[in-house]
Amino acid sequence: MPVTGCSVVQVFEGVSDEVLLKARGAAISTAVDTAEITRNRFLTEVDIQDITTKTEELEDEEGGTSNVSAITITLGEK
Amino acid sequence: MPVTGCSVVQVFEGVSDEVLLKARGAAISTAVDTAEITRNRFLTEVDIQDITTKTEELEDEEGGTSNVSAITITLGEK
Repeated sequence: MPVTGCSVVQVFEGVSDEVLLKARGAAISTAVDTAEITRNRFLTEVDIQDITTKTEELEDEEGGTSNVSAITITLGEK
Repeated sequence: MPVTGCSVVQVFEGVSDEVLLKARGAAISTAVDTAEITRNRFLTEVDIQDITTKTEELEDEEGGTSNVSAITITLGEK
């Protein structure tokens, strides 16, 4: 997954009560957009249950490390 | 303030126990970076107390409206 990738790691299919949206770097705003559009338009019975952020240390091609912010947005039924 | 602007609306100067980081659109990831760097590097006695998101309706130059996601990150002492 690219550093800027944003993925829904679980889907509401009766399998889980929660969907986690995870993103790093510039994709963080896309994750927030996804959560807002989901709860306002597509799944109005869903709301944001929790938002957490952290700093991840990534190894670059030269073997060094760089820090990148990451967000996890938990969506669940109201 | 530009739509993509990110601003610290309060500062830790003994005046307030909290700092609110607010950002819209692509600047959301900058706000998260700011919060992470603040709590990990500059003010380690500070932590994220709350994160909320919302959708704001903005008027464009043609008089129409467009929706943009916004984030508010509350920083406070641990």
